[in-house]
Amino acid sequence: MTVDFSNWVCPTPLRDYPAIVMGHGAGGKLSTELITHLFLPAFGGPHGPLADAALIDVGGARLAISTDSFVVRPLFFPGGNIGELAINGTINDIAMMGAQPIALTASFILEEGMPLAQLGLIAESMGRAAHNAGVILIAGDTKVVDRGHGDGVYITTTGFGLVPAGITIGPEHARPGDAIIVSGPIGLHGIAILSVREGIEFGAPVTSDTAALHGLVSTMLASGSRIHTLRDPTRGGVAAALNEIAATAQIGIEIIERDIPIPPAVQAACELLGMDPLHIANEGKLIVFVERDDAERLLAAMRTHPLGRDAALIGYATIDHPGVVVARTGIGGMRVVDTLVGEQLPRIC
Amino acid sequence: MTVDFSNWVCPTPLRDYPAIVMGHGAGGKLSTELITHLFLPAFGGPHGPLADAALIDVGGARLAISTDSFVVRPLFFPGGNIGELAINGTINDIAMMGAQPIALTASFILEEGMPLAQLGLIAESMGRAAHNAGVILIAGDTKVVDRGHGDGVYITTTGFGLVPAGITIGPEHARPGDAIIVSGPIGLHGIAILSVREGIEFGAPVTSDTAALHGLVSTMLASGSRIHTLRDPTRGGVAAALNEIAATAQIGIEIIERDIPIPPAVQAACELLGMDPLHIANEGKLIVFVERDDAERLLAAMRTHPLGRDAALIGYATIDHPGVVVARTGIGGMRVVDTLVGEQLPRIC
Repeated sequence: MTVDFSNWVCPTPLRDYPAIVMGHGAGGKLSTELITHLFLPAFGGPHGPLADAALIDVGGARLAISTDSFVVRPLFFPGGNIGELAINGTINDIAMMGAQPIALTASFILEEGMPLAQLGLIAESMGRAAHNAGVILIAGDTKVVDRGHGDGVYITTTGFGLVPAGITIGPEHARPGDAIIVSGPIGLHGIAILSVREGIEFGAPVTSDTAALHGLVSTMLASGSRIHTLRDPTRGGVAAALNEIAATAQIGIEIIERDIPIPPAVQAACELLGMDPLHIANEGKLIVFVERDDAERLLAAMRTHPLGRDAALIGYATIDHPGVVVARTGIGGMRVVDTLVGEQLPRIC
Repeated sequence: MTVDFSNWVCPTPLRDYPAIVMGHGAGGKLSTELITHLFLPAFGGPHGPLADAALIDVGGARLAISTDSFVVRPLFFPGGNIGELAINGTINDIAMMGAQPIALTASFILEEGMPLAQLGLIAESMGRAAHNAGVILIAGDTKVVDRGHGDGVYITTTGFGLVPAGITIGPEHARPGDAIIVSGPIGLHGIAILSVREGIEFGAPVTSDTAALHGLVSTMLASGSRIHTLRDPTRGGVAAALNEIAATAQIGIEIIERDIPIPPAVQAACELLGMDPLHIANEGKLIVFVERDDAERLLAAMRTHPLGRDAALIGYATIDHPGVVVARTGIGGMRVVDTLVGEQLPRIC
């Protein structure tokens, strides 16, 4: 059938790309442009906004909803596989709204020829991850595409959680003066994927940090600390997460480089490849913005949880340079920490 | 990385297929086997069941949830495109639980090289379909896969709706004696896809029936008829839908072939290709099981709605041959209407 695409006019030019490039899926500036310039106008007006996650009121309860597609390559990597990543990733999006996840749906796009033994192991690890997290898998779908038109399996999970009364957490609530804490060492997931995909060894083997963070969030909320913002630094890493919060809340952010926990193997890999650990994806870490006076109490609470044992204060929000993230370097200088334009390492989740 | 798949033992053999075949995604017996033998045991125990759609209690309200991935080829077809199909299809899954849809999420797996103009048109028709249906798109995600590892775009939508108090509709509620009504002519979507994919013309052009059915369902519920079961006959067609209901409710089903509305172009195409119109997918039709005494009232109500104008009574549920669907043929004989094993026409949604 002939379709006339000349009808369609992109509302604002997308950096003059006429077609999708890998960077549109990498969580950086190109991803943001695609969403704000193409999807939002199309879904706009009364249908928007189309964010990562959303809150709707149901029967007086606040339901947190998030959806994510997982296209990671390879399907199996050190520390996990696409199945548990799809469970944990969506649980974490829900948890970052301060919600406790209750249920997930999972939809599978399978490639003709995918070995059932691989699919079986992936499904089992999804079941295990859901069980461990205390969420139920309530609905699903399965489609098959022709050989060569997939990569074994793509998984889309959608999660639902309930936001407890009195909790108001979001990027727009970050405030100048807030202390910024990261829950543990960064860069492990991205480097684990890179090491197996490229066959590079970086001294000690690097294992993905994939984990469900809602238990840690529960512990944090129970500490009574005034938490303003939670974010899991996945695609685009800590840099993308902080830039998004800075832009949304219109605050400046200053982090201290030497206080950021970076494992030696991640540091070595980044030096070898010319990457910045702040741009590397994590799948089991969170960043929290908390009222400065509560920072020590929150840190102490986080360190009682296995997933927050190595939590560290890495900086502060400020009224200076709103929308901009800067890092104080080891030698006393300052550098701007920007979001990448496109991909540094596509398909890490 | 080396992964040892020898650990995984399929709980029961999947017809001795060691790998995914197209039929696993076609909505027939192979799809059912994949779900019951591979996914359900993996997600089983406290995490199951993993059905098409599910109901959960939230704050005293009954929330209906359904998820679906769309991989239709081609992306644009007579009467629609993958975008509105993804909106309407998930709305319909919600509507078949007697729920009114309120919100959708949409997640995109884009192929590198997908023209933005095509994606823009698809997104715009999604926005339009959602707007027309009165639902909001509340959350989304975008991933990009390498050129050749997709088909332009795959879309996964997840929908949420509220089930009004007093409504209890499901395949398990169909009862012997129920009248069975179809909302209009069948086979249009599947034949529309086939005609454009294979470049075959069947006399009059055939256009997909893609439509959101929740308005029709509202009209039906308002008639006060005692509706037991609703089902949209998509993959696998009317035959798969009826067989699923017969098996779930453990009832027999008898349909009268000459009473089934089949458009002449669909009939001609099926004769040419050796297909059964009962196996062809629909994307804007529903089947309803209703208390026999209410059938005329329900038919009258349905015919007041544009999407039910050609509604027809096609048969009855019976206590005979539980789990089996039979058709009374034009020449007075009877034939068993079975579900296909695998694909007749894969990737129609």
